[in-house]
Amino acid sequence: MKSLTEYLFFHTPKRRELVNITQKIADLVSKSEVREGLCLVSAMHITAGIWVNDDESGLKQDFLELLDRLAPEGDYRHHQTGEDNGDAHLKRTLVGHQTTFPITEGRLDLGPWEQIFYAEFDGRRQKRVVVKIIGE
Amino acid sequence: MKSLTEYLFFHTPKRRELVNITQKIADLVSKSEVREGLCLVSAMHITAGIWVNDDESGLKQDFLELLDRLAPEGDYRHHQTGEDNGDAHLKRTLVGHQTTFPITEGRLDLGPWEQIFYAEFDGRRQKRVVVKIIGE
Amino acid sequence: MKSLTEYLFFHTPKRRELVNITQKIADLVSKSEVREGLCLVSAMHITAGIWVNDDESGLKQDFLELLDRLAPEGDYRHHQTGEDNGDAHLKRTLVGHQTTFPITEGRLDLGPWEQIFYAEFDGRRQKRVVVKIIGE
Repeated sequence: MKSLTEYLFFHTPKRRELVNITQKIADLVSKSEVREGLCLVSAMHITAGIWVNDDESGLKQDFLELLDRLAPEGDYRHHQTGEDNGDAHLKRTLVGHQTTFPITEGRLDLGPWEQIFYAEFDGRRQKRVVVKIIGE
Repeated sequence: MKSLTEYLFFHTPKRRELVNITQKIADLVSKSEVREGLCLVSAMHITAGIWVNDDESGLKQDFLELLDRLAPEGDYRHHQTGEDNGDAHLKRTLVGHQTTFPITEGRLDLGPWEQIFYAEFDGRRQKRVVVKIIGE
Repeated sequence: MKSLTEYLFFHTPKRRELVNITQKIADLVSKSEVREGLCLVSAMHITAGIWVNDDESGLKQDFLELLDRLAPEGDYRHHQTGEDNGDAHLKRTLVGHQTTFPITEGRLDLGPWEQIFYAEFDGRRQKRVVVKIIGE
């Protein structure tokens, strides 16, 4: 069995941002030399997620607006700790914080429009994503 | 390490449909001859998901109504591209587009009521699901 | 390839409860002797999920309130079967019922605030979570 572990670092200028990381993940799959296996991509900070969808600007805005509608900014009990990012914790929960991708014949096996996004909901500080590849 | 990669194709007559694929996945696990491992089931098109729950008709309707309440049909920015399926992209996001199942002693290791559904939100055209099994 | 399969049992006194299982999962990773691999944690009952977030009491309440807002208790079609837990099925759907964790250098590779919760939405009876570890 082969494996590869890498960490991607993010420090987005805006509080909320969708960063397309598809090429980065594809490059790590190549680097791993795994031909058949699985690639886990997981946000390690609890106010960020991983979203797999089309890289279309209207859709990305629709997505962020959906999350704002379901988990709006506002007063949360969590803010009694001094934080102000309660909505970001909940948004990450609704999006999901990780995705596992198949690796087939040495390549990331994505659908025709699947793009991988790091979804930041409380940026402007350093965050991390773990990429774990296993297979052979 | 053993692996198996298969693609399931769907072309549902209705726009929204829940298709129970539990037996198909179980058959692929048998075919793989993996005794201990993982089985990833992932919708490759960005308007479909994978749902794991009970195959009970009332519940399936409750589930579709929940999604219609949270991400209704309507005017989305994505529709400026000529598409009309913005809600389907968002529904897939809320359901999740993939699940990983354990394989134990050569069998899909499901709970007593867990059934696996392909959840189509924009059917009437060909779509694909990837099944990736690794283990030994 | 090494593998380990274990089942965790829960019987929560309350209908809804978040049970921190981080240490239990870390212990199973140690027991598996896997150095590099993946650890799948999946709720086998369809009214429970797995949530990964901060163990902060206000946030946990915010999370349960979000779910109550999006999928409230009430009249569901599913209740025509005699059940009264329609909301629990939907809450599990929104949270997600499983998470895959990386194992790196023999340890559960979590972010600094990531804690793993068993999220029970219809307790007061025995439930099960499967933990499947593969790697080497």
